[in-house]
Amino acid sequence: MFTQVIEPRFSETDALGHINNTVFAVWFEACRTPVFRIFTPDLNVTQWPLIIAKVTLEFHAQTQYGENVEILTQISRLGGSSFDVYQEAWQNGIKCVSGTAVMVQFDYQSQTTKALSPDIRAALQQHAI
Amino acid sequence: MFTQVIEPRFSETDALGHINNTVFAVWFEACRTPVFRIFTPDLNVTQWPLIIAKVTLEFHAQTQYGENVEILTQISRLGGSSFDVYQEAWQNGIKCVSGTAVMVQFDYQSQTTKALSPDIRAALQQHAI
Amino acid sequence: MFTQVIEPRFSETDALGHINNTVFAVWFEACRTPVFRIFTPDLNVTQWPLIIAKVTLEFHAQTQYGENVEILTQISRLGGSSFDVYQEAWQNGIKCVSGTAVMVQFDYQSQTTKALSPDIRAALQQHAI
Amino acid sequence: MFTQVIEPRFSETDALGHINNTVFAVWFEACRTPVFRIFTPDLNVTQWPLIIAKVTLEFHAQTQYGENVEILTQISRLGGSSFDVYQEAWQNGIKCVSGTAVMVQFDYQSQTTKALSPDIRAALQQHAI
Repeated sequence: MFTQVIEPRFSETDALGHINNTVFAVWFEACRTPVFRIFTPDLNVTQWPLIIAKVTLEFHAQTQYGENVEILTQISRLGGSSFDVYQEAWQNGIKCVSGTAVMVQFDYQSQTTKALSPDIRAALQQHAI
Repeated sequence: MFTQVIEPRFSETDALGHINNTVFAVWFEACRTPVFRIFTPDLNVTQWPLIIAKVTLEFHAQTQYGENVEILTQISRLGGSSFDVYQEAWQNGIKCVSGTAVMVQFDYQSQTTKALSPDIRAALQQHAI
Repeated sequence: MFTQVIEPRFSETDALGHINNTVFAVWFEACRTPVFRIFTPDLNVTQWPLIIAKVTLEFHAQTQYGENVEILTQISRLGGSSFDVYQEAWQNGIKCVSGTAVMVQFDYQSQTTKALSPDIRAALQQHAI
Repeated sequence: MFTQVIEPRFSETDALGHINNTVFAVWFEACRTPVFRIFTPDLNVTQWPLIIAKVTLEFHAQTQYGENVEILTQISRLGGSSFDVYQEAWQNGIKCVSGTAVMVQFDYQSQTTKALSPDIRAALQQHAI
């Protein structure tokens, strides 16, 4: 499990006074960075090996400005060329948002999916739920 | 069905050269505005009657900068106090992204859900799939 | 002068109930698209000829959610390889924000500035203040 | 001087492969949080005492994804009711972006400016250039 702390930004609030729901798509992508590093250790964007197939976000409680948020990131499914990243956002002991991103290893040049290698699988497995 | 046209912004691209996946959460929320107007015709943020319970986004094709995107918005489920908004993003005849937002009528003061009135149901029904 | 209309997005509000100040950097860049098209008619991001050297934003009045905003875009200076884009955001007859972006024609491959051609100068001149 | 570290987010890159210029408006606002806390220690958004009058951003070098950015925040001017916050973004020993935000103490209820108290002035002075 990867654990990261995010300090909400003022621009991430909305007129209802809380963190806008769309921000969690951004935070969760940001907190998949250690997963990206398993595929591209230097995060070289010219050799990016992943696409996103699906994102689900479930909102359990309002997230406040002014308090840190802890993001937990785990691998919840390992397929042939795809895998799921399950994430939770916690604030003050409350699980505010959870979500899953379906990622696919992808060769942008040939525009085809690519099977996960044994090394990659093993690295992802270390962060499985 | 509501139909809206969005001109992608340069800041909405990412290093892979396409529109970043998180942007669709923003575009789809923006294109739910006519649905919000059914509840709050003047979009008065101090009397906001909706919360979002869940968002799903499915990515079918890459979305390019430099070409307009058409967003289609329909009601795909009508419950007691909640309903689903189904949306699609099309570019150059290709369905790039689809998604569903689960919305709940909510009284922020009492922090409780509120049943959809017959008038609201009828208005939403006009945009049902 | 280029004139464009923007419908504020809910996610662009902040906890003070108005459009967040950082959003104007985004809107103004989006509304420089017709200027970008003078340099790159098809907005091909792999042959991008501009960099931004400086941005100034002045905030005159709060911008509300729920009302359209008109963005006016003009060329306020033409230099050898650089030029200024002056922009204003109006809502309900009130000038809410104004700003200037200093743009430089730039060759990303050689990483050097490039003089504006007579054709480009003439095209920009048509939108001069 | 306040010093903060930001890990660039993938969604903050643009099609040119670097961090989009508009993101610095967001990062710099986020890094003014310790300044906001001088006015509102608990960051209570219902009692917000500041408005922003002007923002200037100067771009000196491209900022990369994959490397942390250090943001330095200092007070560069102290007026009667207003003050300037000067900020720099550094990456790998290079000053990539600098900027100044003109902030004004403001009473949202009476919609008037409000003089900086001696205590506030002293607290800001501790972070003066």
